[in-house]
Amino acid sequence: MRMVDLIEKKRNGQLLNKEEIQFIIRGYVSGDIPDYQISAWLMAIYFQGMLAEETAELTLAMAQSGKQIDLGKYGLHCIDKHSTGGVGDKTTLIVAPLVAACGVKIAKMSGRGLGFTGGTIDKLEAIPGFHTELSEEAFLKQVADIGLAVTAQSADIVPADKKLYALRDVTGTVNSIPLIASSVMSKKIAAGAQGIVLDVKYGSGAFMPDIEQARTLAEIMVDIGNKLERKTIAILSDMNQPLGNAVGNSLEILEVVDSLQGTGPADLLEVCLLLGSWMLIAAGKTDCVGEGKRLLQKALDSGAAWQKFCQLISAQKGDLLKVQNKELFLAPYVKTYQAPEDAFIQNIDAGLVGRAAMMLGAGRETKESTIDFGAGLVILKKTGEKVLTGESLLKIYTSDAQKAESSMDILRKALVLGQERPVLPMANTIVVQ
Amino acid sequence: MRMVDLIEKKRNGQLLNKEEIQFIIRGYVSGDIPDYQISAWLMAIYFQGMLAEETAELTLAMAQSGKQIDLGKYGLHCIDKHSTGGVGDKTTLIVAPLVAACGVKIAKMSGRGLGFTGGTIDKLEAIPGFHTELSEEAFLKQVADIGLAVTAQSADIVPADKKLYALRDVTGTVNSIPLIASSVMSKKIAAGAQGIVLDVKYGSGAFMPDIEQARTLAEIMVDIGNKLERKTIAILSDMNQPLGNAVGNSLEILEVVDSLQGTGPADLLEVCLLLGSWMLIAAGKTDCVGEGKRLLQKALDSGAAWQKFCQLISAQKGDLLKVQNKELFLAPYVKTYQAPEDAFIQNIDAGLVGRAAMMLGAGRETKESTIDFGAGLVILKKTGEKVLTGESLLKIYTSDAQKAESSMDILRKALVLGQERPVLPMANTIVVQ
Repeated sequence: MRMVDLIEKKRNGQLLNKEEIQFIIRGYVSGDIPDYQISAWLMAIYFQGMLAEETAELTLAMAQSGKQIDLGKYGLHCIDKHSTGGVGDKTTLIVAPLVAACGVKIAKMSGRGLGFTGGTIDKLEAIPGFHTELSEEAFLKQVADIGLAVTAQSADIVPADKKLYALRDVTGTVNSIPLIASSVMSKKIAAGAQGIVLDVKYGSGAFMPDIEQARTLAEIMVDIGNKLERKTIAILSDMNQPLGNAVGNSLEILEVVDSLQGTGPADLLEVCLLLGSWMLIAAGKTDCVGEGKRLLQKALDSGAAWQKFCQLISAQKGDLLKVQNKELFLAPYVKTYQAPEDAFIQNIDAGLVGRAAMMLGAGRETKESTIDFGAGLVILKKTGEKVLTGESLLKIYTSDAQKAESSMDILRKALVLGQERPVLPMANTIVVQ
Repeated sequence: MRMVDLIEKKRNGQLLNKEEIQFIIRGYVSGDIPDYQISAWLMAIYFQGMLAEETAELTLAMAQSGKQIDLGKYGLHCIDKHSTGGVGDKTTLIVAPLVAACGVKIAKMSGRGLGFTGGTIDKLEAIPGFHTELSEEAFLKQVADIGLAVTAQSADIVPADKKLYALRDVTGTVNSIPLIASSVMSKKIAAGAQGIVLDVKYGSGAFMPDIEQARTLAEIMVDIGNKLERKTIAILSDMNQPLGNAVGNSLEILEVVDSLQGTGPADLLEVCLLLGSWMLIAAGKTDCVGEGKRLLQKALDSGAAWQKFCQLISAQKGDLLKVQNKELFLAPYVKTYQAPEDAFIQNIDAGLVGRAAMMLGAGRETKESTIDFGAGLVILKKTGEKVLTGESLLKIYTSDAQKAESSMDILRKALVLGQERPVLPMANTIVVQ
């Protein structure tokens, strides 16, 4: 088999079979196939796409490129959850304790944020002392003990994805649905969970700007998961305005605490209950979303979910007292944006909010950037609300006063004010399974 | 400027401007831009194409990547000729002396053959002693002295093309019209001729299988040449059956001798007179093809063209006596293919003939293969001719009897026999200028 022939095959729109895809991924990881052939192949995929069966084979080949965790061998049956990434998306930290409190085991490997979207591992590191690098043994023991553990993905899981992603990033081949789908799903498959619930976000604050593309991505990922014998369900969720009110690592942890104590924002809780109830369905705890939501609400109201979160923090050596007392570090320079007139909030552009948060220090512009955990912003009024002149619309936190000004300029564009009461779009729930 | 942004620009079908193209080619040749970004960019060009102005800028950037010969500085006004490559294509060796005998200077840099097409330099090396690696000084002095020199392209001419071609070869991006056009034309521009006549071949024995693709390629190359202020003319010529009768290096030199002595095959002479008359037009020696052909015919009939060829051989230290006496080395194992029945020759597939000749040892399968100058074949009957049972249709020459059998199998497929007298396609001349 010659790589140049396989590039030409894909370029000409033909199917690659299992052996050919295995040859490519193995050859790339071993170094036998050079970057320059892989990047030409990736660009051919960008233009010609891949059918569902090819994408599933690619996913499997990638999953098999490194260590695969066999949870069954440890007697564990786990449900995984993945978000395609959004602005202010802290759902994992709310859903995981909620679902774990209902007796479903969660062995979660998470990533760090890049660009305007945050990463769960970064948020957890805003808790002083929290260990995010667990050994496989410690990770699985904790899941067995308390039903929940969250760790950074180790380097030996799906090395093919690390190499491919780094190459895609510099060759204009990130934005290809089969490549995105196989990247996400290979990590889920290798992490070993028997059921997977995907939160596919669309809108200005997500990687997929429109719902149709998001639906296609969701369908392909569900198809891959089911082909590879993992019960897989996807939910499409709106990321045109930020989820909840807080964007930034410490601020989001505080919002997680509020949410688990029953005082969090309604939009955030709604998405969490929906995702959580599908995780319960994937785990076989119920067969109906309504029943699932009731079980989760009970775990929330009883304090069981909050207790589970506290257990997680203690188990991973985080400073629980600081979390309970809401004493996380916040950046010292604080500024509010006040309404210049009486108006209705027409729209809050999540993409611009994400960019402003990144500028304040809450996110990474490049992989090498360091994060200011205390930086970020809190939205005080959301789309559809009436505001009066001088009322505070949002509050920013940063360690650098100069950054405050430039990010405030962006935020003034992100919050669109107008005299008409806006018609809010129907919040349809779309589930792909 | 970041290469990844330029890849995405091309991927999205946008135009690249002069500065962007210069940035890419300079960066690639200097090593600042890695192969893996260039190959992704090449694949994006494969799918999105390039407009005429972009292709001209690419050509210019490539031409400027190494040494450029300024013939004007040496007081030379030269006409160049280029063939896109075909089976049995020895036209350069006939046209160049013909045109030079009419007083037009030819400073020809030629390539070696790869695959089923031959290279002029390989053919010349079938003449014992012939020097194909001239210094620039010796090359230009010879042009000034006798009006004609042929040398292998030196390594410092268009280094960008060498790097790009090697990369295209292994990344499925050879077959892209703007990339082919810029590769050819950058070498012509750097070689410095003030006029360029292109012989764009189509058919089974050429790189472009159909005439429409060949016409597109011709139009783009002519457009590039004229944009870069070189008088450029292209002729489309049929390469469905081999040109002339001989395929293989010594055999083709013998056919060149016959042609220059007035006893060569008619189809070959016709193409040579057409190409040559356009070279005379490009040089300003005439403004009409008919007059050009008459001038060339005179140079042929008077023996002036043959004398010019002899001068070329002597100047470049070839063994003239061996050429005059037709004593070039021919491979010892000779076999003929006899007609199995009375029939008409319906078709001779040039692609298959080329492959058979390569198998006999006349061509290179890979860049590292060595050539057997004495190997090859001579076609004794051409398309449309009536043949009787037992009549010889062709004759092969090889040093390896085993190769004879397998190549004869291919040749039996290449020569299609039938009972009907075939209708020969009209030999239209298409000129793009």
